[in-house]
Amino acid sequence: MPGKRQTKISIEINKRKYTIVGDESESHVRLVGEMVDKKMEEIHQKNRHLDTSNIAVLTAINTMNDYLKMKEEYDELIKLIEEDS
Amino acid sequence: MPGKRQTKISIEINKRKYTIVGDESESHVRLVGEMVDKKMEEIHQKNRHLDTSNIAVLTAINTMNDYLKMKEEYDELIKLIEEDS
Repeated sequence: MPGKRQTKISIEINKRKYTIVGDESESHVRLVGEMVDKKMEEIHQKNRHLDTSNIAVLTAINTMNDYLKMKEEYDELIKLIEEDS
Repeated sequence: MPGKRQTKISIEINKRKYTIVGDESESHVRLVGEMVDKKMEEIHQKNRHLDTSNIAVLTAINTMNDYLKMKEEYDELIKLIEEDS
Protein backbone atom coordinates (compact mmCIF):
# COMPACT_ATOMS: atom_id res chain seq x y z
CA MET A 1 0.00 0.00 0.00
CA PRO A 2 1.60 3.35 -0.91
CA GLY A 3 2.57 5.47 2.07
CA LYS A 4 1.91 2.64 4.52
CA ARG A 5 4.95 1.34 6.40
CA GLN A 6 5.53 -2.33 5.68
CA THR A 7 7.51 -4.50 8.05
CA LYS A 8 9.32 -7.69 7.10
CA ILE A 9 9.75 -10.01 10.06
CA SER A 10 11.23 -13.48 10.18
CA ILE A 11 9.62 -15.90 12.65
CA GLU A 12 10.31 -19.56 13.36
CA ILE A 13 7.48 -22.06 13.46
CA ASN A 14 7.99 -25.79 13.90
CA LYS A 15 11.74 -25.30 13.30
CA ARG A 16 11.16 -23.55 9.98
CA LYS A 17 11.51 -19.86 9.14
CA TYR A 18 8.65 -17.79 7.73
CA THR A 19 8.96 -14.20 6.56
CA ILE A 20 5.90 -12.15 7.36
CA VAL A 21 5.34 -8.92 5.42
CA GLY A 22 2.70 -6.54 6.70
CA ASP A 23 1.88 -3.43 8.65
CA GLU A 24 1.72 -5.07 12.09
CA SER A 25 4.25 -4.24 14.81
CA GLU A 26 7.18 -6.62 15.32
CA SER A 27 5.97 -7.56 18.81
CA HIS A 28 2.51 -8.44 17.45
CA VAL A 29 3.95 -10.64 14.67
CA ARG A 30 6.30 -12.37 17.15
CA LEU A 31 3.36 -13.04 19.51
CA VAL A 32 1.32 -14.51 16.63
CA GLY A 33 4.29 -16.73 15.70
CA GLU A 34 4.81 -17.93 19.27
CA MET A 35 1.12 -18.75 19.69
CA VAL A 36 0.97 -20.72 16.43
CA ASP A 37 4.20 -22.56 17.31
CA LYS A 38 2.85 -23.44 20.77
CA LYS A 39 -0.51 -24.64 19.42
CA MET A 40 1.21 -26.79 16.77
CA GLU A 41 3.41 -28.34 19.47
CA GLU A 42 0.35 -29.09 21.65
CA ILE A 43 -1.46 -30.77 18.74
CA HIS A 44 1.70 -32.69 17.85
CA GLN A 45 2.03 -33.98 21.45
CA LYS A 46 -1.55 -35.31 21.33
CA ASN A 47 -1.22 -36.78 17.82
CA ARG A 48 2.33 -38.06 17.38
CA HIS A 49 1.53 -39.85 14.11
CA LEU A 50 0.53 -36.67 12.22
CA ASP A 51 2.82 -34.95 9.72
CA THR A 52 3.54 -31.18 9.72
CA SER A 53 0.94 -30.44 7.07
CA ASN A 54 -1.87 -32.12 9.02
CA ILE A 55 -0.74 -30.55 12.30
CA ALA A 56 -0.78 -27.11 10.64
CA VAL A 57 -4.27 -27.67 9.17
CA LEU A 58 -5.56 -28.78 12.60
CA THR A 59 -3.89 -25.70 14.14
CA ALA A 60 -5.68 -23.50 11.59
CA ILE A 61 -9.02 -25.26 12.35
CA ASN A 62 -8.48 -24.85 16.10
CA THR A 63 -7.59 -21.16 15.78
CA MET A 64 -10.48 -20.46 13.39
CA ASN A 65 -12.79 -22.04 15.97
CA ASP A 66 -11.40 -19.69 18.67
CA TYR A 67 -11.73 -16.74 16.27
CA LEU A 68 -15.38 -17.47 15.43
CA LYS A 69 -16.30 -17.93 19.09
CA MET A 70 -14.57 -14.65 19.99
CA LYS A 71 -16.36 -12.91 17.11
CA GLU A 72 -19.74 -14.24 18.27
CA GLU A 73 -19.08 -12.93 21.80
CA TYR A 74 -17.96 -9.57 20.38
CA ASP A 75 -21.07 -9.27 18.18
CA GLU A 76 -23.26 -10.23 21.16
CA LEU A 77 -21.62 -7.48 23.24
CA ILE A 78 -22.15 -4.88 20.48
CA LYS A 79 -25.82 -5.94 20.28
CA LEU A 80 -26.25 -5.52 24.05
CA ILE A 81 -24.64 -2.06 23.94
CA GLU A 82 -26.91 -1.01 21.07
CA GLU A 83 -30.03 -2.30 22.85
CA ASP A 84 -28.98 -0.45 25.99
CA SER A 85 -28.44 2.94 24.36
CA MET B 1 -16.00 -35.31 29.24
CA PRO B 2 -18.59 -37.50 30.97
CA GLY B 3 -22.16 -36.46 30.35
CA LYS B 4 -21.19 -33.99 27.65
CA ARG B 5 -22.43 -34.77 24.15
CA GLN B 6 -19.50 -35.25 21.76
CA THR B 7 -19.96 -34.89 18.03
CA LYS B 8 -17.74 -36.47 15.39
CA ILE B 9 -17.85 -34.55 12.15
CA SER B 10 -15.91 -35.14 8.96
CA ILE B 11 -14.87 -32.03 7.01
CA GLU B 12 -12.83 -31.64 3.83
CA ILE B 13 -9.96 -29.17 3.69
CA ASN B 14 -7.64 -28.83 0.71
CA LYS B 15 -9.11 -32.07 -0.73
CA ARG B 16 -8.30 -34.03 2.42
CA LYS B 17 -10.70 -35.30 5.09
CA TYR B 18 -10.36 -34.35 8.77
CA THR B 19 -12.49 -35.79 11.56
CA ILE B 20 -13.31 -33.24 14.22
CA VAL B 21 -14.40 -34.50 17.64
CA GLY B 22 -15.87 -31.98 20.04
CA ASP B 23 -18.95 -30.47 21.58
CA GLU B 24 -19.59 -27.87 18.87
CA SER B 25 -22.66 -28.01 16.62
CA GLU B 26 -22.29 -29.58 13.19
CA SER B 27 -23.06 -26.25 11.47
CA HIS B 28 -20.34 -24.48 13.50
CA VAL B 29 -17.73 -27.13 12.65
CA ARG B 30 -18.71 -27.00 8.96
CA LEU B 31 -18.41 -23.20 8.96
CA VAL B 32 -14.94 -23.42 10.56
CA GLY B 33 -13.90 -25.97 7.92
CA GLU B 34 -15.20 -23.86 5.04
CA MET B 35 -13.42 -20.76 6.32
CA VAL B 36 -10.08 -22.59 6.74
CA ASP B 37 -10.46 -24.16 3.29
CA LYS B 38 -11.20 -20.76 1.73
CA LYS B 39 -8.27 -19.07 3.47
CA MET B 40 -5.88 -21.84 2.35
CA GLU B 41 -7.11 -21.45 -1.22
CA GLU B 42 -6.59 -17.66 -1.09
CA ILE B 43 -3.03 -18.07 0.23
CA HIS B 44 -2.34 -20.73 -2.39
CA GLN B 45 -3.56 -18.41 -5.18
CA LYS B 46 -1.16 -15.68 -4.03
CA ASN B 47 1.80 -18.08 -3.48
CA ARG B 48 1.62 -20.79 -6.14
CA HIS B 49 5.09 -22.13 -5.29
CA LEU B 50 4.25 -23.07 -1.69
CA ASP B 51 3.57 -26.65 -0.63
CA THR B 52 0.52 -27.70 1.44
CA SER B 53 2.45 -27.68 4.70
CA ASN B 54 3.65 -24.07 4.26
CA ILE B 55 0.20 -22.93 3.08
CA ALA B 56 -1.34 -24.52 6.17
CA VAL B 57 1.19 -22.83 8.52
CA LEU B 58 0.57 -19.45 6.83
CA THR B 59 -3.19 -20.05 7.18
CA ALA B 60 -2.70 -20.73 10.90
CA ILE B 61 -0.57 -17.52 11.23
CA ASN B 62 -3.17 -15.48 9.35
CA THR B 63 -6.04 -16.84 11.46
CA MET B 64 -4.12 -16.32 14.72
CA ASN B 65 -3.54 -12.70 13.66
CA ASP B 66 -7.29 -12.23 13.10
CA TYR B 67 -8.02 -13.92 16.45
CA LEU B 68 -5.61 -11.68 18.40
CA LYS B 69 -6.95 -8.52 16.76
CA MET B 70 -10.53 -9.56 17.55
CA LYS B 71 -9.52 -10.36 21.14
CA GLU B 72 -7.89 -6.92 21.52
CA GLU B 73 -11.10 -5.24 20.27
CA TYR B 74 -13.19 -7.40 22.61
CA ASP B 75 -10.99 -6.57 25.62
CA GLU B 76 -11.12 -2.88 24.70
CA LEU B 77 -14.92 -3.03 24.60
CA ILE B 78 -15.07 -4.77 28.01
CA LYS B 79 -12.79 -2.05 29.42
CA LEU B 80 -15.03 0.69 28.04
CA ILE B 81 -18.14 -0.96 29.52
CA GLU B 82 -16.44 -1.30 32.90
CA GLU B 83 -15.30 2.34 32.87
CA ASP B 84 -18.80 3.42 31.93
CA SER B 85 -20.59 1.58 34.72
